[in-house]
Amino acid sequence: MKRYQVTFFPNKLNIEVPENENILKAAQMAGVYVSASCGGETTCGKCKIVIKEGIVETENTGKLSQEEIDRGYYLACATKIKSDLDVLIPVESRISDREILEKKKELLLYPESLKHLIKDWTLKPIVQKYFLELLAPDLQNNLNDLDRLLLFLEKEHKLKDIEVDFLVVERLSKVFRQDGFKVTVTILYAVKQIKLIYIEPGDTTKEHYSIALDIGTTSVYGQLIDLNKGRVVSQSSDYNAQISCGEDVITRIVYALKGKGAEELQGLVVKTINKIVIELLKDTEIEGDKVSHIVVSGNTTMIHLLLNVDPRYIREAPYVPTFNSLGPLKTLDFNLDINNYAYMYLMPSVASYIGGDITSGILGTGIYDEDKLTLYIDVGTNGEIVLGNKEMLLSASCSAGPAFEGGTIKHGMRATKGAIEEVYIDKTLEPKLVTIGKEKPKGICGTGLINIVAELLEKGVIDQGGKFHQGLGSNRIRKEGNFYEYVLCFAKDSAIDRDIVITEVDIDNLIRAKGAMYAGMSVLVAYIGISFADISRVIIAGNLGENIDIKRAITIGFLPELPLDRFTFVGNGSLLGARLFSLSQEKSKKAYEIASHMINFELSSYNKFMDEYMAALFIPHTNDTRFPEVMKRIKI
Amino acid sequence: MKRYQVTFFPNKLNIEVPENENILKAAQMAGVYVSASCGGETTCGKCKIVIKEGIVETENTGKLSQEEIDRGYYLACATKIKSDLDVLIPVESRISDREILEKKKELLLYPESLKHLIKDWTLKPIVQKYFLELLAPDLQNNLNDLDRLLLFLEKEHKLKDIEVDFLVVERLSKVFRQDGFKVTVTILYAVKQIKLIYIEPGDTTKEHYSIALDIGTTSVYGQLIDLNKGRVVSQSSDYNAQISCGEDVITRIVYALKGKGAEELQGLVVKTINKIVIELLKDTEIEGDKVSHIVVSGNTTMIHLLLNVDPRYIREAPYVPTFNSLGPLKTLDFNLDINNYAYMYLMPSVASYIGGDITSGILGTGIYDEDKLTLYIDVGTNGEIVLGNKEMLLSASCSAGPAFEGGTIKHGMRATKGAIEEVYIDKTLEPKLVTIGKEKPKGICGTGLINIVAELLEKGVIDQGGKFHQGLGSNRIRKEGNFYEYVLCFAKDSAIDRDIVITEVDIDNLIRAKGAMYAGMSVLVAYIGISFADISRVIIAGNLGENIDIKRAITIGFLPELPLDRFTFVGNGSLLGARLFSLSQEKSKKAYEIASHMINFELSSYNKFMDEYMAALFIPHTNDTRFPEVMKRIKI
Repeated sequence: MKRYQVTFFPNKLNIEVPENENILKAAQMAGVYVSASCGGETTCGKCKIVIKEGIVETENTGKLSQEEIDRGYYLACATKIKSDLDVLIPVESRISDREILEKKKELLLYPESLKHLIKDWTLKPIVQKYFLELLAPDLQNNLNDLDRLLLFLEKEHKLKDIEVDFLVVERLSKVFRQDGFKVTVTILYAVKQIKLIYIEPGDTTKEHYSIALDIGTTSVYGQLIDLNKGRVVSQSSDYNAQISCGEDVITRIVYALKGKGAEELQGLVVKTINKIVIELLKDTEIEGDKVSHIVVSGNTTMIHLLLNVDPRYIREAPYVPTFNSLGPLKTLDFNLDINNYAYMYLMPSVASYIGGDITSGILGTGIYDEDKLTLYIDVGTNGEIVLGNKEMLLSASCSAGPAFEGGTIKHGMRATKGAIEEVYIDKTLEPKLVTIGKEKPKGICGTGLINIVAELLEKGVIDQGGKFHQGLGSNRIRKEGNFYEYVLCFAKDSAIDRDIVITEVDIDNLIRAKGAMYAGMSVLVAYIGISFADISRVIIAGNLGENIDIKRAITIGFLPELPLDRFTFVGNGSLLGARLFSLSQEKSKKAYEIASHMINFELSSYNKFMDEYMAALFIPHTNDTRFPEVMKRIKI
Repeated sequence: MKRYQVTFFPNKLNIEVPENENILKAAQMAGVYVSASCGGETTCGKCKIVIKEGIVETENTGKLSQEEIDRGYYLACATKIKSDLDVLIPVESRISDREILEKKKELLLYPESLKHLIKDWTLKPIVQKYFLELLAPDLQNNLNDLDRLLLFLEKEHKLKDIEVDFLVVERLSKVFRQDGFKVTVTILYAVKQIKLIYIEPGDTTKEHYSIALDIGTTSVYGQLIDLNKGRVVSQSSDYNAQISCGEDVITRIVYALKGKGAEELQGLVVKTINKIVIELLKDTEIEGDKVSHIVVSGNTTMIHLLLNVDPRYIREAPYVPTFNSLGPLKTLDFNLDINNYAYMYLMPSVASYIGGDITSGILGTGIYDEDKLTLYIDVGTNGEIVLGNKEMLLSASCSAGPAFEGGTIKHGMRATKGAIEEVYIDKTLEPKLVTIGKEKPKGICGTGLINIVAELLEKGVIDQGGKFHQGLGSNRIRKEGNFYEYVLCFAKDSAIDRDIVITEVDIDNLIRAKGAMYAGMSVLVAYIGISFADISRVIIAGNLGENIDIKRAITIGFLPELPLDRFTFVGNGSLLGARLFSLSQEKSKKAYEIASHMINFELSSYNKFMDEYMAALFIPHTNDTRFPEVMKRIKI
């Protein structure tokens, strides 16, 4: 079969592929990130590219306007390669480079800094190193090497019933004799298991590290942790390379079920992780063989895909994952390039749509350990809600849809450079825009969407149903087809040479997204017979959470109306819990308890949810009394 | 590099090898068994071959006589291949084909037939299958698949704290839904561990098998066991393909320490095992995926080599093995072709020279469980001795040297067709020979050696020091160099066209071998302050054991003089114990107890042993009172 060179611009990344490969796959292989919410199904129309040079064969998907076709646009997933190609990824299809992820890096967190969230914990990592000085054998005591080691561990460290990895057996006789029977052993602790996983000559206890990983549907974050000091020594992140196989977990599952999709998805996320691991180590010049374990936190689908366990039944009712909790697994068995002995712990999940990332957030924020009632919200494509305290933990997930992440919005985009984040509308209805990176506007991110809708409502541009008021007399408001829209930025000022607008359809999408979230919270609150006012603290986690304007979010009825000081941002709760899991045996046990004690509500099968949802399809809500302060503002 | 075709006759086995490969290696690769006690070190001079056609380059090892060189003989290990070759393996270098091994096959053993040896045991295999009918999940109970399974096992079968192999997780969701949540799970029991290792749709409990393997230095024996019926359903055996890398454990260890020797040895024994497994299954048409485990019994060196664990320190004082006991290992990790989930249990060993084969024999014969005192002897190149009862078990090993297996004897050979097994000498000092298979004599096997020396002594041909009496006036007795010899068979009657003799050097080798064994037994008997007469039973195991003439063995002072009815043959004790281990959880636990409670004597560091050894270098013994009946016979 013929093979062709494809070069992707502006990054000039090059790849050789067989004839007839589609351009989306080629981009994927070249490591070029292209938006493709549907995972290459030709249905989302997002993976627009421009052919600068070369021959292709394309199918008509009806997803491109005549104007776009005239300008040389193609849909990458529907276009086959027929010669060497130069392909431009236009700005609207680009997933921006990594500056934004970099920006989101947390400050290095020391044990002390964790304490403001978690009441008390002691540094006792889940994998420990012990330095041992054994007696050499002689004819009077020629016990075999392994029993010599195990008896010593029992005598000196009270460690019994240790399982021994074969790797240790293989190395044992040599390592014993390399430094006169002085060795360092690495012992892994799991719930009901102690494993001897590594042995080295001499004393290496001072060099012991772990990696905490948050595998998100969009991004993967990693931290390298010094287990002696209990501190993060380097951080790295990247987009999850699965991103071009679909934007949300559902499209990923669909992708996994086709042909070799599952293997491909596993390969892609493993590639991302391996890249992050290399960067974490490079930054610090720490050797990979000093990393004894990684702790992986992610939603249930991401974890199934990482292990290449069939995710089919996560998506089909009654939504049954294959597993919630597994013991530590050898990283080597999953092609993770750490070293030949390291293990991977998985944060236990609760259900198909309450993953280990949520368990992790609950662990990291100490909610499970307090008298006071906390509401924990993780906002993304999927919204997860946990309500509880040390007595009880309830969870629910709402398929909010991708509106919060800029999806299904006409000019929606991720929260990267050029995204409109905030808007202020003056009396003449002219907007003042704030964009990420202060660049020319490219589109609207999730936070921006909330802020825009709140502003439109407060300034009387739209009504509580999300419809535009008539006759306001501004050229910014216009009708396109059946729906009105508001022009945030005319083509001349935008980075995409087109008007950037927010439409009634966009607003409706947001209302449904926030309605689902608010209804979910209402169901949990009602279930235990309290009102929102009884909640002492609301913790907001997740990507959107970090940038959200609480007041604006209350205005649109996404968050309950509570005093602002009850809201806390936790940033990446998933990574926070994974780190704590690695650093504390006691906390790691707690994680399994949290996951198994959490009571999950399948909202789709819960009648009360539908009532609450219908009631929440209004801004802020059909029941004014729930948002008295907002009502005051919007009535002005 | 050039490659040549080498054809080995008489079997016409063909192999292509690179130029300059030596012929011994080529034979090894072609699956042709050639004697090579030294493992290809050019020191034993056993691997004689004849080049029928082609060009070779050879070195002068001084191991071939001028006559042999004139007849076209070469030493395989010292001869490089320089063209296509036709090579004849002459009869004296051939390790005979498998008829003898076949002959040794035990009768199929049913549980009842084991009972005469082992007092009581119940059929409860170490790996069990359970058929489960689970409830399908619905929205009211959508617990994940794995927890659904584990909770059911806990509720219905009281099984807790089960470790789950990842293979099961991978298959779980599919298998659950293949036959309406009716599944068969395979559960492995280890000392402190319960593992879920396999899951299948439907009820497969009726098809469940294991394989017991005895890995000997020379031969490998296997039995396929029906775990529902507790009976052996097929048997197979073959030479250990490592045989051309040295005859005894010491030469194998030396071989392992050179270059890639250890990998090679592992590969060879794995090849042998895989061949046996195929035969076991083929004979019965049972599928490999119905075999849940194998139990491997072998000496400490064989087990180290099978796992490719460095055997170096087994050979060097203070003789420390890397391990005695390991938990079950995945067969797949060692390239054993059973299926993708089966485990391998290893019979635990006691010391470098008291291996799992001995533990197995003690388990299989129930010695550890009785009041009466038993002496267990396994005779081979290495002799192992165990003395004990339910109170205590003592063990010792004596490096008897290869005399018992026909090694170091001028015309020594293995117990295969044409080996002289027995001799009767008449008054004219003419011998009447009995050979295995009633073929023309080729040499003397171990049993034959004992019988010949006993006969020579009883008929007054040799004295108690093993020297020939002078002036007996027979042409059978003659002097070659400094030593006398007795011609058992003149060239015209032999299969090797040369006289077959027994020399004073051969007799001396036997005396040292039997002296070491007898001294070892004496040390153990003396240690607990008894005499041989206090021993209720002597069990003889091992290859030599099966064919030994007890009375003859007592005559030469190899076995203690006790009433003949106290001696029992157990055959392959190693395989017997391995089978019992597989069939009974209780007995498998016993095996670990036996191995850890056995007190082993390092005879080489035990002063009393040297005294006993010196005293035993006489036929039957320097102390006549230990062999009163023998003395009567030889004084006649």
